[in-house]
Amino acid sequence: MRLVDHHVHSTLAATPDRATFELLITEADRPGPAGTTQFDSQLGFAIRAHCAPLLGLDAHAPADDYWAARTARPEEEVADAFLRAAGVDHWLVDTGFKGDLLLPLDRLSGGRDEQVSEILRLESLLESVAAGATAQTLMTDFRQALTDAVPHIRGLKSIVAYRYGFDIGPDRPSPREVQEAAARWLAELETGAPARVSDPVLLRMLLWEGADTGLPLQLHTGYGDADLELHRCDPLLLAPWIKAVEPTGAAVMLLHCYPFHRNAGFLAQVFPHVYLDVGLAVNHTGAASPGVVAESLELAPFTKILYSSDAWGPPELHYLGALLWRKGMAAALSRWVHAGEWSTADAVRVATLIGRSNAERVYRLA
Amino acid sequence: MRLVDHHVHSTLAATPDRATFELLITEADRPGPAGTTQFDSQLGFAIRAHCAPLLGLDAHAPADDYWAARTARPEEEVADAFLRAAGVDHWLVDTGFKGDLLLPLDRLSGGRDEQVSEILRLESLLESVAAGATAQTLMTDFRQALTDAVPHIRGLKSIVAYRYGFDIGPDRPSPREVQEAAARWLAELETGAPARVSDPVLLRMLLWEGADTGLPLQLHTGYGDADLELHRCDPLLLAPWIKAVEPTGAAVMLLHCYPFHRNAGFLAQVFPHVYLDVGLAVNHTGAASPGVVAESLELAPFTKILYSSDAWGPPELHYLGALLWRKGMAAALSRWVHAGEWSTADAVRVATLIGRSNAERVYRLA
Amino acid sequence: MRLVDHHVHSTLAATPDRATFELLITEADRPGPAGTTQFDSQLGFAIRAHCAPLLGLDAHAPADDYWAARTARPEEEVADAFLRAAGVDHWLVDTGFKGDLLLPLDRLSGGRDEQVSEILRLESLLESVAAGATAQTLMTDFRQALTDAVPHIRGLKSIVAYRYGFDIGPDRPSPREVQEAAARWLAELETGAPARVSDPVLLRMLLWEGADTGLPLQLHTGYGDADLELHRCDPLLLAPWIKAVEPTGAAVMLLHCYPFHRNAGFLAQVFPHVYLDVGLAVNHTGAASPGVVAESLELAPFTKILYSSDAWGPPELHYLGALLWRKGMAAALSRWVHAGEWSTADAVRVATLIGRSNAERVYRLA
Repeated sequence: MRLVDHHVHSTLAATPDRATFELLITEADRPGPAGTTQFDSQLGFAIRAHCAPLLGLDAHAPADDYWAARTARPEEEVADAFLRAAGVDHWLVDTGFKGDLLLPLDRLSGGRDEQVSEILRLESLLESVAAGATAQTLMTDFRQALTDAVPHIRGLKSIVAYRYGFDIGPDRPSPREVQEAAARWLAELETGAPARVSDPVLLRMLLWEGADTGLPLQLHTGYGDADLELHRCDPLLLAPWIKAVEPTGAAVMLLHCYPFHRNAGFLAQVFPHVYLDVGLAVNHTGAASPGVVAESLELAPFTKILYSSDAWGPPELHYLGALLWRKGMAAALSRWVHAGEWSTADAVRVATLIGRSNAERVYRLA
Repeated sequence: MRLVDHHVHSTLAATPDRATFELLITEADRPGPAGTTQFDSQLGFAIRAHCAPLLGLDAHAPADDYWAARTARPEEEVADAFLRAAGVDHWLVDTGFKGDLLLPLDRLSGGRDEQVSEILRLESLLESVAAGATAQTLMTDFRQALTDAVPHIRGLKSIVAYRYGFDIGPDRPSPREVQEAAARWLAELETGAPARVSDPVLLRMLLWEGADTGLPLQLHTGYGDADLELHRCDPLLLAPWIKAVEPTGAAVMLLHCYPFHRNAGFLAQVFPHVYLDVGLAVNHTGAASPGVVAESLELAPFTKILYSSDAWGPPELHYLGALLWRKGMAAALSRWVHAGEWSTADAVRVATLIGRSNAERVYRLA
Repeated sequence: MRLVDHHVHSTLAATPDRATFELLITEADRPGPAGTTQFDSQLGFAIRAHCAPLLGLDAHAPADDYWAARTARPEEEVADAFLRAAGVDHWLVDTGFKGDLLLPLDRLSGGRDEQVSEILRLESLLESVAAGATAQTLMTDFRQALTDAVPHIRGLKSIVAYRYGFDIGPDRPSPREVQEAAARWLAELETGAPARVSDPVLLRMLLWEGADTGLPLQLHTGYGDADLELHRCDPLLLAPWIKAVEPTGAAVMLLHCYPFHRNAGFLAQVFPHVYLDVGLAVNHTGAASPGVVAESLELAPFTKILYSSDAWGPPELHYLGALLWRKGMAAALSRWVHAGEWSTADAVRVATLIGRSNAERVYRLA
């Protein structure tokens, strides 16, 4: 079965150095204690177990051997090997994070028969229009930019979890509130502050404007890097906004969710417009990921769960996301089939729903 | 082994239509996305796996076939088949939720040799006396109604988790506080508001009056429908009240608890008067429920865990609760016996404690 | 493989009575309901399964037989049997809790070839200098006592989770704030209050002074007795302080962590100076502990996880901590090796890292 990876980023534009690569296989933003390597992690072990053979090495090859083999090949060749092996038909690519280090979207699929679509990050779009805006025009400038973008994208993404937290409140801010917040923010920018929106009024404006488009709205949820306060990324805290936004018709896509994936499953069951995945966590929990995948199959209806890798940069991550998800699903579903709890036909159908059909339905890909 | 189901509701008084049935097998209160069915869930799959054969169908029969077979029989016959197969000796029935759609208690056991006892919902009782009360008399009227009811019931139930949250504070409100809150509430009722108590002072009054009876007090905990704020239903938030109420001698029965069942296990270990079950979650996690059952057996002493289904309406739920709990317990306990961690005799004894003896002791059923 | 138990307490100085023993195998501070025994728990079953044979009984011997065999031997002989069987090379002993009931450190290793080092509890040290201090001198008196102690200890411990909670804020208090808090506290002590520090300013002062030593700083995290508010012991709440303290170079050792061990794993991944263990929880979850151990191996790098028992008192706990950890690790690692996810050599290496090498590195034991 070929997959739709509904939340992913592009691959590295060039071979990284070893130190950079190590930081791309952890959510830490700086090295670990002296003498340690990020390869000594579930993700590092998964790379050595599953990626090494695609480079002609034995499974579990030492990290140094892996590194030598990987850097002996052009980055494009490495990417082609791993992306091809991922078995993904369609990549829905969030373009909002450090895109200058990555392949542009039109080169992501290489010569392979894969589709690539864009997911637009709301915060990045606002930041891109800030330079030319005034407090009076910021919202309309943003709205115009969003309207212009909509025909070219498949969905939207918000990182409000990073920029503030899910305790942001449910209300659509009034134009006056937005104007006041815009004035504060633009004044900061004039002093030379980097264009990084973190004002809760502006962030709520983005969530509502995004929902107004009716496109699926992806939300970073749970685990990520040290820049977020994880206890404020519990999706339960967002329930008031989730309730409020339902009439817009936008699907709310809770991404990653670990370690709050059971909470996300609750939301996906009780709210018709809520969906979830456990991307990112699957890669980072490696050999232990079957437990996480199984937990994602508890409360959420099978029509509300999707596959994603959340890979960014090393194409190993695009491949491992798919491989580990397949293995985790196979483990859970075959266990249930053998126990007489599920039929084989249902297992195949649910794997297809989660692996691609739900994404095709929600993002209107077919 | 026959069970005591210490928290359950009655079964449907009449065959539902398909749309109604679908909403009775989810905690959502409205349909999912167009083209989806609630049968595509762990609970739906469990119905097809385990209930279909009791209606003469193959295991995993399609949902439409299941529906045809189910509705070809009178509801009483369906209920008799499933309740009989549940192997339950004694149903402790919470009568406080939409009882008009359900069989009255005196008809629940059909002609079978099963006992039925009542669990009285505190909020419903207060709402039932509100019409004839004044701010001055509300508490005494309630207290009188409770005193009158006590000889006829086995325990009490509170849904403070739904009506406010477990962050309600520990203190018994003073008569003056109750009178003031009663005045506010009764004034609302005079304007035509439905009799639905959500004032935290009145809710705390109910918790304390309930505990004063010395009867076991069941508390909805954790997962439920979209009407609750799940992060405010973590039983850890109730710890101050749990400590304060200990001298009354009332047992505090934490119901369901998912996804906070590990937190509930902590409370059951450190507080002598705290008990827990994982009802509701077992049905809704279906094939994945053995994991939830095993997690409920971590910290809580085996004398502090009970069985419940929390079934409401479709008798499938009364049956599946028992079946899935038996399977989950058998899986965990046999794993531990095979590993040499438990003796077989201990496994049987613990299953009996949780399946019935703990309930018999706490509710004085013997 | 012999272990380093990086957080443990000493063993009982004398044979306890049965009631005392029962309270030492639970985190409850008073007996359970009438007619129940603390042996009916995962820990009780683990004692009967694994400790009974070391006393010449069959595995799973009844609790009364166990008790008879245990009390027929001098406590020293019991301790020698269990500590020897634990296979621990080095005990890092927190001396801050009820030490008068325990063997002094110089007798803990008996005649066996085991090293014993001290971990000093910050709150106890402050309480010990309070009697001779004034508001003006308390901090300097404490600092002097700490400086005097540092050459004789391997690390520090804080129970801020018990005394306040992890929502204590990140800032190092100013000398003026400390002096004001000291004045309030010492005034209380003069009225005869027991010397038990719970003022958040003083507790934060301890955390910062402790970190300033550069020694590893152990923090009670998560599950413990009824004296703590568990939802305030989630290590995520401590993240602001964890970030702030990083420049001191002190390692932050999150102890126990259950049920927040996944949260602790996140912190251990993203912060170079954060480490974790699942001690205490392993003993108390007994046969179910392999699940907890496996969950501790999800996000945390393998260089950031340690072994501890957190045993206090009965030497059964020192033994079971080691035994159950070994079994849990063996279960997880052999599953991953059999699945082709890990190599056997890596499994051995990771077990060694967690079982001893990480502790040797962080505490500079080699």
